[in-house]
Amino acid sequence: MSEAKIRLYVDQALSAGQPVAVGADQANYLFNVMRLAVGGQVVLFNGRDSEWRAVVTQAGKRAGVLICVEALRPLVLPCDLWLVFAPIRKVRTDFIVEKAVELGVSRIVPVQTRHTNAERIRQDRLQAHAVEAAEQCGATFVPEVADLVGLDRLLADWPAGRHLMWCDEAMAGPAAPLAGPQGPWAILIGPEGGFSTDEQARLRGMPGVQPVSLGPRILRADTAAVAALVLWQAALGDWR
Amino acid sequence: MSEAKIRLYVDQALSAGQPVAVGADQANYLFNVMRLAVGGQVVLFNGRDSEWRAVVTQAGKRAGVLICVEALRPLVLPCDLWLVFAPIRKVRTDFIVEKAVELGVSRIVPVQTRHTNAERIRQDRLQAHAVEAAEQCGATFVPEVADLVGLDRLLADWPAGRHLMWCDEAMAGPAAPLAGPQGPWAILIGPEGGFSTDEQARLRGMPGVQPVSLGPRILRADTAAVAALVLWQAALGDWR
Repeated sequence: MSEAKIRLYVDQALSAGQPVAVGADQANYLFNVMRLAVGGQVVLFNGRDSEWRAVVTQAGKRAGVLICVEALRPLVLPCDLWLVFAPIRKVRTDFIVEKAVELGVSRIVPVQTRHTNAERIRQDRLQAHAVEAAEQCGATFVPEVADLVGLDRLLADWPAGRHLMWCDEAMAGPAAPLAGPQGPWAILIGPEGGFSTDEQARLRGMPGVQPVSLGPRILRADTAAVAALVLWQAALGDWR
Repeated sequence: MSEAKIRLYVDQALSAGQPVAVGADQANYLFNVMRLAVGGQVVLFNGRDSEWRAVVTQAGKRAGVLICVEALRPLVLPCDLWLVFAPIRKVRTDFIVEKAVELGVSRIVPVQTRHTNAERIRQDRLQAHAVEAAEQCGATFVPEVADLVGLDRLLADWPAGRHLMWCDEAMAGPAAPLAGPQGPWAILIGPEGGFSTDEQARLRGMPGVQPVSLGPRILRADTAAVAALVLWQAALGDWR
């Protein structure tokens, strides 16, 4: 991999000898910005197959072709962990998506709560941001970013057996030791205004919900998301 | 505290009845941006005394006076934990400083390594950023941001008895269970290019150094800093 530093996500099947066509945006990036020419090398991944070393065979201004020549690493799936969070302002929401990819989640679910400011999100932009994060951090999997959903609706349809690590800024005291069964989990991060009384009551009444405190200081929502992901990975995930 | 939402750091002694003069920048913030008038309330802290509720007694365009009326919370010192990190580009360095304050460190030490890009930092700007982070996260203490120092020099003068949690992107495998004695600690986060062979050899030869892996994916330096702080606080710090 030493000669192929550029990692590129493509939405096409990858296998030995497979030609992969790239469109205008990726051609501009590869051949204009990064100045790759025919014979240049790129690492390709698609989130489904192995990661491949590919060689440029056509380099045009608006399109190009690469050929897969060597499988480098198998697809590595993250643990079955959702990150459910209330979107905040743009820069910090982007940050949460980037960190969720780096720290390894299987699905990213923006949720609207009583005190969430955002009424809509640009799902396509956040999904592109997740792809970019995966390209940069070496992940072979890209988590899906779901559309914004109301918390009531999300909890009403909650999958049986999926445990929930509930992080609430309002909870003080030492961090709960995170212990729990293996299996599917989700982390829920509240908005900066915290959850409403109704929402708190509903969460407390749900089976499989584990409230967790994140230390004695008030954390921003983006810090809380990263902290919760780290605690989960260290206790139950692939950092063990 | 319910009526005094604005938290302000001042570099003056705070005690009952103490008048506190504010200069042009803070007067502009309080009386122009936040539209406070005489009788308005502010929470003051100075990183040394208790946190105080104060009332505005003079509100001018370029200066003002507040009087301390009620001690709200005692000074809470963080654990004796340094964060030593190689500065990266501006936005992510700012981010590391902000998160270090939120997650509770006693000192922030930017360090120049063989592969660090930054040759100098704006210490005053980073210190102001630490103050702002403390104002927003409710901390009563503000960690000092040190001047940029070379890693060789820092290690040559390393205080006896201060343990070092060494996070190196090059270390793969499961996260080391962080165990160690109580007492002073530091976390060392490498540059995005990793430590040089010489630096690695030197760190491995130092007493009290504990190498820690941060999971199976490559983390950006800012993610690594937050992850390391969370692991330390949960294992040895004030999140226990």
